[in-house]
Amino acid sequence: MDKLSTLRLGLAQINTTVGDLSGNTNKIIRFIDKAKPLGVELVIFPELAITGYPPEDLLLKPQFIKQNQEHLKKIIRHSSEITLVVGFVDSDSDTYNAAAVICNNKLTGVYHKIYLPNYGVFDENRYFQPGTQCPIFTIHNIGIGITICEDIWHKDGPAAIEARTGAKLLVNISASPYHAGKKHTRERMLTARAVDNVAIIACNNLIGGQDELVFDGNSLVINEKGEVIAQGKQFEEDFIVVDLNMDFAFRTQLHRPQYGKEPHLVRRELRQANKMEVSSQFSTIDKPPLPSRQLEKMDDVAEIYQALTMGIRDYVNKNGFKKVVIGLSGGVDSSLVATIAVDALGAANIVGVSMPSRYTSSASKLDAELLAKNLGIEFSVISIEKTFISYLETLASPFNNTRSDVTEENLQARIRGNILFALSNKFGWLVLSCSNKSETATGYATLYGDMAGGFAPLQDVFKTMVFELAKYKNCQAGREVIPHSVLNKAPSAELKPNQKDIDTLPPYESLDSILKAYVEDDLSINQIVANGFDHEIVTKVARLVDKSEYKRRQSPPGIKITPKGFGKDRRLPITNRFRD
Amino acid sequence: MDKLSTLRLGLAQINTTVGDLSGNTNKIIRFIDKAKPLGVELVIFPELAITGYPPEDLLLKPQFIKQNQEHLKKIIRHSSEITLVVGFVDSDSDTYNAAAVICNNKLTGVYHKIYLPNYGVFDENRYFQPGTQCPIFTIHNIGIGITICEDIWHKDGPAAIEARTGAKLLVNISASPYHAGKKHTRERMLTARAVDNVAIIACNNLIGGQDELVFDGNSLVINEKGEVIAQGKQFEEDFIVVDLNMDFAFRTQLHRPQYGKEPHLVRRELRQANKMEVSSQFSTIDKPPLPSRQLEKMDDVAEIYQALTMGIRDYVNKNGFKKVVIGLSGGVDSSLVATIAVDALGAANIVGVSMPSRYTSSASKLDAELLAKNLGIEFSVISIEKTFISYLETLASPFNNTRSDVTEENLQARIRGNILFALSNKFGWLVLSCSNKSETATGYATLYGDMAGGFAPLQDVFKTMVFELAKYKNCQAGREVIPHSVLNKAPSAELKPNQKDIDTLPPYESLDSILKAYVEDDLSINQIVANGFDHEIVTKVARLVDKSEYKRRQSPPGIKITPKGFGKDRRLPITNRFRD
Repeated sequence: MDKLSTLRLGLAQINTTVGDLSGNTNKIIRFIDKAKPLGVELVIFPELAITGYPPEDLLLKPQFIKQNQEHLKKIIRHSSEITLVVGFVDSDSDTYNAAAVICNNKLTGVYHKIYLPNYGVFDENRYFQPGTQCPIFTIHNIGIGITICEDIWHKDGPAAIEARTGAKLLVNISASPYHAGKKHTRERMLTARAVDNVAIIACNNLIGGQDELVFDGNSLVINEKGEVIAQGKQFEEDFIVVDLNMDFAFRTQLHRPQYGKEPHLVRRELRQANKMEVSSQFSTIDKPPLPSRQLEKMDDVAEIYQALTMGIRDYVNKNGFKKVVIGLSGGVDSSLVATIAVDALGAANIVGVSMPSRYTSSASKLDAELLAKNLGIEFSVISIEKTFISYLETLASPFNNTRSDVTEENLQARIRGNILFALSNKFGWLVLSCSNKSETATGYATLYGDMAGGFAPLQDVFKTMVFELAKYKNCQAGREVIPHSVLNKAPSAELKPNQKDIDTLPPYESLDSILKAYVEDDLSINQIVANGFDHEIVTKVARLVDKSEYKRRQSPPGIKITPKGFGKDRRLPITNRFRD
Repeated sequence: MDKLSTLRLGLAQINTTVGDLSGNTNKIIRFIDKAKPLGVELVIFPELAITGYPPEDLLLKPQFIKQNQEHLKKIIRHSSEITLVVGFVDSDSDTYNAAAVICNNKLTGVYHKIYLPNYGVFDENRYFQPGTQCPIFTIHNIGIGITICEDIWHKDGPAAIEARTGAKLLVNISASPYHAGKKHTRERMLTARAVDNVAIIACNNLIGGQDELVFDGNSLVINEKGEVIAQGKQFEEDFIVVDLNMDFAFRTQLHRPQYGKEPHLVRRELRQANKMEVSSQFSTIDKPPLPSRQLEKMDDVAEIYQALTMGIRDYVNKNGFKKVVIGLSGGVDSSLVATIAVDALGAANIVGVSMPSRYTSSASKLDAELLAKNLGIEFSVISIEKTFISYLETLASPFNNTRSDVTEENLQARIRGNILFALSNKFGWLVLSCSNKSETATGYATLYGDMAGGFAPLQDVFKTMVFELAKYKNCQAGREVIPHSVLNKAPSAELKPNQKDIDTLPPYESLDSILKAYVEDDLSINQIVANGFDHEIVTKVARLVDKSEYKRRQSPPGIKITPKGFGKDRRLPITNRFRD
């Protein structure tokens, strides 16, 4: 490779924290310090790296915007002899989701995100004005175009304009929320952009957990032929350094007009802006050789397991907790949550509590104990029986002449919720709720009972996937972490004699398919029936989903791992008479 | 008035229910049937009258949009010899918040909302494309322009274009969420539009409660001189019929160009559309004389009381409940909730439960009982003492060598929450939580304890306003509904000996002012201090607000009565390190 046509690029795939302007800025500076001795000429950081993503209504606080600008200045002062692209909030009379281009202690230019996502979990129109300019920056005569996340998903969007205006390196800074399988979609899209625009794409994607979202990193550099030439780790901070061979840029420049015809765009105001010279100096240091990078390929189940692990770790740590407490029923949900929590936080930070009642089988008690032993976590048994009796006695008079029903079942679940929260209050432990997506969808869970928690890691994980994740863990560990007995027994809430989930719900295989169709794909009842399900069952499931909206509204946040999770992703009214 | 220049207009200020396409359509048809014998020539209905407002993610279900269109056809078939403006969801390749203009069994035209609100509680960019056309409809040679809600708040928006294009009657169909004092802002704005555009404004605003929102009606007809000539009731369904004297239209038509110069607009694509003839026939029936209308003027406190009453009534009824249960502590919050609930649902539908512990004063017990007697509601006493002891015994071993702290306080609150939910489960009663805005903001409330409920009517009502509302009620009733002793004692949670709110929180007068500044106005700590508050206290309050986000995320919905309530109005991350 000719040194003159090589650009050493660094992608700082960092884990930011929302609102931690100082912490994020210090981390950005640490990565700049890491880049300089490596001879990196251009370092790019994720979308809104200074503020963390998504800052939500913090963006409505003028002091937040102002302090973010002050932190940008601190970064600028730290940019001698290097070029940076840093996500921040730009603001004059309007507010923009922006990328600062910084070189040698100067702010060379600013790009404003043009396509603001306002669907799914996104609310960017709530905060930002769209940009209208597609500036080109040049380093060593190489044209560089910038886009932010959503921008590059639009084929004829700013990346295309920038490429036609002469950009040969298309930098994209992203905070693209994870769901299973999305990395393939993202990679295919980025490959198409590279090939279509005959340009190198460098997409730096955020990693880390933020409330219900996880960002998986997996940053990509794809050359003009559509080949992946560098890739960031998934679910881990990473600093990806790659030498870009820009020979093609000088070759193709001769044959393509510098300023191409503007493509037809939805936004007709969109304009190319002037070119801005960033730097004409190559790195002055001898560039050390780069080590080769090997990345593990993960399948969907492994990926989801990692997503949940990072989601728990970041929620717990970023919110200042150290330990978590989990009610261990001996069932697969709580067993899986405890297992992932151990991977996320270490066994020393997990407390398991078994809270048996008269209906708890001895097998369940043993399973809970065995799991705790396998995981090496603190474990205690707190019987709820006396308190249950006390409630029954207290309510005997108002419940006079009534039959035992779901009320008595919920009471048991709520005593358990109270005990976990008492432990949380007393010792400062975060409670993890173990409700999965099948339960949360159908309301097969007790509000303030098993739904009680600060965080609900499995809220977007269907029961069938809970089993897969548990099996994956055992397989990956090469031993029985989650006892086989847990995996082989029929799911039961054990809140009345001989209770099984299947008494109330359809088998999980069909339930989860119906739920996916109704909740994630918004299919009508007739459409789901046409896919081969029984009309009565589909109608019943849809009714359960609809009437449980009030419970979900009060559930703790979970981790989004599907294209449509509960929470910000699915905003249905509670008061709602639509049935289809 | 010259019959030839008079248009009889009806504003059907109806209470719709989200998702109840059939119910809303039947109600629309009932109002059409009511209008015809009155000789009404044009009837207007609120924004999205067919679907209810806001339908939120129901709009992502194609079957929902399709069924809404089918219901529109039903209305069209019912429109012989009358003209209607009906809010519905229009959809081809895009989806629009639309107004159908219907005349004599034909769909004459459709207007698409141009300014889509996407701030505060609104998410309209999530669902809709903005319209680009400002059509004019003519009835008896009178030009009529249509706008939807937000549109008319923009001075140079579609109403101005329509007026310049010849519209003399500007119809606005709204679903404008209530907050205290908003009606004055709305009336001032509409008056300015009427005068500026020399046109009559007829604004039909929705009434009713929908989850955390209430719509207050208060529809207005304002003549071209800026005089209110008709007004709808506040917080009640109404059918406002008014004869519009359009003489000015024929006079001014001679002096003004039919198609004026298009004003400079933010959206340059915005275009006037062709005129559409709606009907050239006058009503064929003899128009009966209209009775005069007298409306009660409400001050802010009375208005808030009515908003809360309607909010409770609609949440309970629209969700299919009949009775509610309220934990009566003898304090002012629960006393007020019970009192409003009686006004909303009738005394026969309210159950009050006193749940004393060892820390409950005899005064509180007596106050709860007296309140229930004053209100004439069912009342029972369920002691939590035995269950509290049972928890303490159960937790004695894990709590060995710890001190009594907030844990034991929360346990009492959670036992009460469990008892209320047990009654709810057993008898199908909805639980009303009594947490107010001061508590919800600072986290001075127990998650799953006093925060437990299906609905939290006071969630947006500061404690100082709680007292005002209670005094207002007594004054309005002309008797002591809420006992004076309740109003005169120092607020206390009574969860430990001699506890007073003031031991933990600043006095409510200053607390509420600080909270308003921090929560509603997004002021920084220094700005609040500059308004005359102690730095240490302001910092403490701000920290309490920040760290309670996780509790609010799990609270039941309340009723928005301020410019910024919790819930959809204020979307802060839980994981958030910003402190200012």
